[in-house]
Amino acid sequence: MALIVQKYGGTSVGSIERIKEVAESVIESREKGNRLVVVLSAMAGQTDALIRLSKEVTETPDLRELDVLMATGEQASVSLFAMAVKSMGYDCCSLLGFQAAIYTDQIHGKARIKNIDADRILKELKERGIVAVAGFQGIDDGSNITTLGRGGSDTTAVALAAAIGASVCEIYTDVEGIFSADPNVCARARKLDRISYEEMLEMASLGAKVLDIRSVEFAKKFNVPIHVRSSFNRNEGTMVVAESKEMEKILVSGVVLDKNEARITVAKLPDRPGNAFRIFDPIFKAGIVVDMIVQNPSAEGRVDLTFTVTKTHFQETLKLVDEVAREIGAEKVLGDQDIAKVSIVGLGMRNHAGVASKMFETLARENINIGLISTSEIKISCVIEGKYAELAVRALHDAFGLGNGGEKN
Amino acid sequence: MALIVQKYGGTSVGSIERIKEVAESVIESREKGNRLVVVLSAMAGQTDALIRLSKEVTETPDLRELDVLMATGEQASVSLFAMAVKSMGYDCCSLLGFQAAIYTDQIHGKARIKNIDADRILKELKERGIVAVAGFQGIDDGSNITTLGRGGSDTTAVALAAAIGASVCEIYTDVEGIFSADPNVCARARKLDRISYEEMLEMASLGAKVLDIRSVEFAKKFNVPIHVRSSFNRNEGTMVVAESKEMEKILVSGVVLDKNEARITVAKLPDRPGNAFRIFDPIFKAGIVVDMIVQNPSAEGRVDLTFTVTKTHFQETLKLVDEVAREIGAEKVLGDQDIAKVSIVGLGMRNHAGVASKMFETLARENINIGLISTSEIKISCVIEGKYAELAVRALHDAFGLGNGGEKN
Repeated sequence: MALIVQKYGGTSVGSIERIKEVAESVIESREKGNRLVVVLSAMAGQTDALIRLSKEVTETPDLRELDVLMATGEQASVSLFAMAVKSMGYDCCSLLGFQAAIYTDQIHGKARIKNIDADRILKELKERGIVAVAGFQGIDDGSNITTLGRGGSDTTAVALAAAIGASVCEIYTDVEGIFSADPNVCARARKLDRISYEEMLEMASLGAKVLDIRSVEFAKKFNVPIHVRSSFNRNEGTMVVAESKEMEKILVSGVVLDKNEARITVAKLPDRPGNAFRIFDPIFKAGIVVDMIVQNPSAEGRVDLTFTVTKTHFQETLKLVDEVAREIGAEKVLGDQDIAKVSIVGLGMRNHAGVASKMFETLARENINIGLISTSEIKISCVIEGKYAELAVRALHDAFGLGNGGEKN
Repeated sequence: MALIVQKYGGTSVGSIERIKEVAESVIESREKGNRLVVVLSAMAGQTDALIRLSKEVTETPDLRELDVLMATGEQASVSLFAMAVKSMGYDCCSLLGFQAAIYTDQIHGKARIKNIDADRILKELKERGIVAVAGFQGIDDGSNITTLGRGGSDTTAVALAAAIGASVCEIYTDVEGIFSADPNVCARARKLDRISYEEMLEMASLGAKVLDIRSVEFAKKFNVPIHVRSSFNRNEGTMVVAESKEMEKILVSGVVLDKNEARITVAKLPDRPGNAFRIFDPIFKAGIVVDMIVQNPSAEGRVDLTFTVTKTHFQETLKLVDEVAREIGAEKVLGDQDIAKVSIVGLGMRNHAGVASKMFETLARENINIGLISTSEIKISCVIEGKYAELAVRALHDAFGLGNGGEKN
């Protein structure tokens, strides 16, 4: 008998039929003697529909009120789910953010969980065995409804698992687990049995969409094991856990592709203190997230500054940079949307120097030119021409032997 | 500068366009210096849609969870309304049942308001001038969401008006006010300027649908003036207020028609103690509301017992009564669905004996036979053949001079 948190995303509760299937799956686990906290997202499409409704009122809806509106999505899911469980003869009750005492800061639309008072959940869990908690929502100190932003239900689930001391947080989704590469790009991609929090964090920030990055940070901080698995079958998925000696033997765990970024280069920027600040300040103030930043000396007293932003922010960023670049005497500003970022991630890189050169060699062998390089302790990212994206993923996947269990160092 | 509660029903907030119009109307009142609590129902159709959704899960949804689901309707309305107000440059925030501290008992689906802690509302009202409160919902002592049942938003509005000491509770609806008769039946029906709580209670229980009866009881108890008016124009509607000497001069205020009832007669019931109880006990236990009850002696040692129920409960009631009637030796059970109940209501009846005979005389002149009669201090109801319903209303409306301001005694 274990204490388990399960989280089901929007697709998993996309219809009444699917909600009933989730109820059956939860009851199956309950029948084994487990007690379960079930975290649900809004039914697929519901969140977008609510946003559209608010846009009919005004292009810039008040963020506090938008949170009140958005919270109805998960409220509907948990009540319908609890009805389904009860109609199948098992006890259950739904709890919303304020009832589950999920306290957040006051940043509407992307609030962060500050703490959870688990008393009510534990009481209901003891009495009923199954408790459904609305994902994505909490309350601030003033009892105002807040939401955690896209992917927030993952964070709710992991935070609850930490708060009640669950043995595992199961994230049910529409894929089988975490793969060594995107199976749509690389046919030989393999489902990983285990991956460390650190690798998962890199993969999530590199564009792997399975888990929300904040939930992984939470899991790492409180050492909550996450089990990413499919809601369409009973197969084992991928365990995301603290790293162990064994894991360090894996040189590269996965290859991640991100085609969502665009590159901007400020060429021949005078090399003076404060110039980087002047370039980036208006971008940050516009709320645009800059991913990679690379600066190299070019001519005498000048540098080339290159960085990437998401394609949706490309035009706006280009305009902002153009203005500043002229003022501070850069030669020109270049932009390129036809790029891809391909990255390899693995704990083993820490102790093994040859990984980068093997990556460069592999790309060179395929005649793929590398535009930008950025590294961290456990990942290497290269920006390449967009048309080579899938080829690069397959070549790297093969080169590091990921299709057959990963190369050992 | 006044403190005002306004309530808008589902039709008044039936679309984003209508919600914006309500926001404009509220702002108009705010511009006059008033501070406003605005109570909203769910958008028209939303409540029914949510019930349908729950029925897809199970025919008998858990009542606690149904309340959680239903509460999303008003939650959406108040958030969209608050967005609209803010987008027009005025401050406002929405409050749900738990935030407005509307405490009820634990009867899910038809909870009764026990008390309201007005601190939060008064604080927001002072700061913002406009506060939107979700109608129809509250919380019980265990922080569970409850709903007040159909028409519950009227009660929310009146209870809030009492709690914050508002000068008036304005109920905006799709009619111009309370009429001396249904204008669809009687072309000469006149909008009443004022009516007493007592008359309104009788009219509501007799089938006039404009105000929920519990809201009138609340208003009477706490002496909250209600102003029933149209949300489609700025015309003055009907004030529902405590009775005054002036009002007692009005013999009859209105004629009310109810075609929703059916009649059941238990003929030649042995006149023994306990027989009425044996007839009604199974009906009450089935949750069926009995309206009129009349008993008369028939043959020696026997009585005829007649009562009315709503047409939706007619068949079920007939079946229940048939069984008991056989057991206790009644001669037969008769049922009739083709009936109408026509009633006159007026404070002046208390001190004027001739009202009943004038009613009977008027019906007799139209050759309308009276099946059942039931009276209270300020109303007389007659059950007649269904086909005469509209004729009876018009004849009584004329006879008591309601078209030109009411007959004085």
